[in-house]
Amino acid sequence: MSKIAALDTYDVRFPTSRQLDGSDAMNPDPDYSAAYVVMRTDQPGLAGYGLAFTIGRGNDVQKAAIDTLNDHVAGLDLDEVIDDLGGFAKRLVGDSQLRWLGPEKGVMHMAIGAVINAAWDLAARVAGKPLWRFIADMSPEQLVATIDFRYLTDALTPDEALTMLHTAAPTKLRRTSQLLAEGYPAYTTSPGWLGYSDEKMQRLAREAVAEGFRTIKLKVGMNVEDDVRRCRLARAAVGPSVAIAVDANQRWDVPDAIRWLRHLKDFQLAWVEEPTSPDDILGHAAIRRAVAPVPISTGEHTHNRVMFKQLFQAGAVDLVQIDAARVGGVNENLAILLLAAKYGVRVFPHAGGVGLCELVQHLAMADFVAISGKKDDRAIEFVDHLHEHFTDPVVISGGTYVAPSAPGFSAQMHQDSVERYRYPDGPVWREPADTAKA
Amino acid sequence: MSKIAALDTYDVRFPTSRQLDGSDAMNPDPDYSAAYVVMRTDQPGLAGYGLAFTIGRGNDVQKAAIDTLNDHVAGLDLDEVIDDLGGFAKRLVGDSQLRWLGPEKGVMHMAIGAVINAAWDLAARVAGKPLWRFIADMSPEQLVATIDFRYLTDALTPDEALTMLHTAAPTKLRRTSQLLAEGYPAYTTSPGWLGYSDEKMQRLAREAVAEGFRTIKLKVGMNVEDDVRRCRLARAAVGPSVAIAVDANQRWDVPDAIRWLRHLKDFQLAWVEEPTSPDDILGHAAIRRAVAPVPISTGEHTHNRVMFKQLFQAGAVDLVQIDAARVGGVNENLAILLLAAKYGVRVFPHAGGVGLCELVQHLAMADFVAISGKKDDRAIEFVDHLHEHFTDPVVISGGTYVAPSAPGFSAQMHQDSVERYRYPDGPVWREPADTAKA
Repeated sequence: MSKIAALDTYDVRFPTSRQLDGSDAMNPDPDYSAAYVVMRTDQPGLAGYGLAFTIGRGNDVQKAAIDTLNDHVAGLDLDEVIDDLGGFAKRLVGDSQLRWLGPEKGVMHMAIGAVINAAWDLAARVAGKPLWRFIADMSPEQLVATIDFRYLTDALTPDEALTMLHTAAPTKLRRTSQLLAEGYPAYTTSPGWLGYSDEKMQRLAREAVAEGFRTIKLKVGMNVEDDVRRCRLARAAVGPSVAIAVDANQRWDVPDAIRWLRHLKDFQLAWVEEPTSPDDILGHAAIRRAVAPVPISTGEHTHNRVMFKQLFQAGAVDLVQIDAARVGGVNENLAILLLAAKYGVRVFPHAGGVGLCELVQHLAMADFVAISGKKDDRAIEFVDHLHEHFTDPVVISGGTYVAPSAPGFSAQMHQDSVERYRYPDGPVWREPADTAKA
Repeated sequence: MSKIAALDTYDVRFPTSRQLDGSDAMNPDPDYSAAYVVMRTDQPGLAGYGLAFTIGRGNDVQKAAIDTLNDHVAGLDLDEVIDDLGGFAKRLVGDSQLRWLGPEKGVMHMAIGAVINAAWDLAARVAGKPLWRFIADMSPEQLVATIDFRYLTDALTPDEALTMLHTAAPTKLRRTSQLLAEGYPAYTTSPGWLGYSDEKMQRLAREAVAEGFRTIKLKVGMNVEDDVRRCRLARAAVGPSVAIAVDANQRWDVPDAIRWLRHLKDFQLAWVEEPTSPDDILGHAAIRRAVAPVPISTGEHTHNRVMFKQLFQAGAVDLVQIDAARVGGVNENLAILLLAAKYGVRVFPHAGGVGLCELVQHLAMADFVAISGKKDDRAIEFVDHLHEHFTDPVVISGGTYVAPSAPGFSAQMHQDSVERYRYPDGPVWREPADTAKA
């Protein structure tokens, strides 16, 4: 009988701020980082991998939060964990003393999410399937059993979820074939970081179109004249038929957002992301009403299913960015995907970070096969950073994500990368800045 | 020129779970704990004190989060900090890398709140005033300058806040005299913990009335028959003219809350606290509409001013529990008090914990003198636990809080208590459970 041996954790940071990769109106100099966790078993070579994504300072706190969960996990029977991923998640989220630190938000919830994701990775590896397929192959009853419906039943009951999944079930195989043949649409944020020059942005935008992307995203929110100019230059670079989205990264108050977006009205934006505080459900609803028909979205910082529920109930968004490493793991993301499907809200997963593309592709693909049945009216973010550090990096072809085939959740990093970028003792952080490679 | 030398931090835990003090429907066995911070200066004997309250496990993570803030604080000029408490708070809350860990919620936001509160404590000590008076003596302009209005301007602008404070200013002295003469109303939760027997609850309820309390609060939410019986017994114990509030500690989904509260309708409850998830603004609004006129409240887990703003905008609550150690310190609580005053929502501060009574009394008293001008339609929670560990413990007389007179924010603990209850190495945690004193 195999056991979970321990959680090994690592504070891994990439010095991305040295080149302004990832810069936006609220995050001028992020160092993309991962509080990385290895759920080790007593079987040599068998482990699950997960991570919480941060942007630098505080990654040590995030790692410390994961460390506190070791006592909940070490010594558990492997089969009991992977056969009851719902119960496993509920025990972590439900620890009454740890719950006080959120509840279900911030550092502790992200830590719990990383450990839960490592357990799903482990379960998919044992099953020999990529995670998207492991989820898609679950029966409706098995999938519903993984979800904590607490605080959701005024919007979605277990019975409603079952009905939705049973409706989708007979055509799952057809969509699996379709996914394998076509991939899943991607959009790219690589041209649009705020720290890039106009020339670099236009060059990258043209390259993106040449590579097959049908949507690009620009960061906005620092200066309205700059934003108008960048939108105009981007439109000139990509032509009339490629969609342009913008992302304000929470820069505005509600009245500011409404004023600012009037200046961007002519660019037929695909969406405006994070116009204000991620907590401001009523604010998003007010902005959306005021600037209609400009589509409004949020989600990468939306901390749990209760907040997503309200975004949908309030009609606050046209689409959402789910994030694989912000909420309480796969279980909570399945709840959010079911809610989105019920309310008819499109999902454009967030992936600007390290490892987020690798993780979130599985959720979007499982959603297509088993839940919403849709992919062609949505897309997964793609940013071409740091994939080389992962053992099963994403594959992009012609502007689409190719469905991964290796078992697991694609979160495993090369141990060499982990050692090299460990903070503060890895060689990258001990070398002078001008010689280190980001 | 004095400097901030460093933040000294301590993981202090009281083994309250051994006697079921503090037990409720979601928190069956809390160990009341403090991630305690001393903002040391280079002047011997001059320091500011603050804490984040937790209920046990994870207090080490909370301490680690405060430790990361040392770099932001050590070496600062003392006068620059205490002369610009608004700028000090904004720099901590606005650190873009740390902000990712919330934003403005959970472990990192509580850590920032503890450090900000320590700075206010220090400022009040330097001024030789108790914090409530230090705030009340600020000019409207000085007070408004401490507040971050980001994400609030659709509900409250700096100009509106100034107008409110100028309206209250001419009568501040009168209310100061009134506060010193009358104290501030208290209510007590001591009888109502869920782990107590009916007999113990009734005895403590009678004692509370004899001591002058006009409101008591019971924990509910585990079993509806138990709740009905306990409400009946409590009413019998306190008589018809003492108010009874109940607290469900987030136990219910929205439909459950509505069904459950029908059973408690006859007890003329003063309020129903935390009926569901603290994140569920729309849920609270739905419950409030369905069970009207039963007053609904929440707030001790409401993580920042953006959430309070929406509770008020949505008409989701009749009253709120503010918490001195959950949000981003005094500055954010002043914003919340101004919002509550503007929307006409009564404030009943949360104080079930360690050090929370000591802290929150200052905020309620400052609100009475300088902001809302009201105290007789509201009350501060009082729980008679653990005050002996503080150097300036609260004083309760005839069911009212006596206004503190010692300089500062009353958060300083006896160093002897800190050493004795340090986790895991203090003597209380090394002794066998049956000999330790909680």
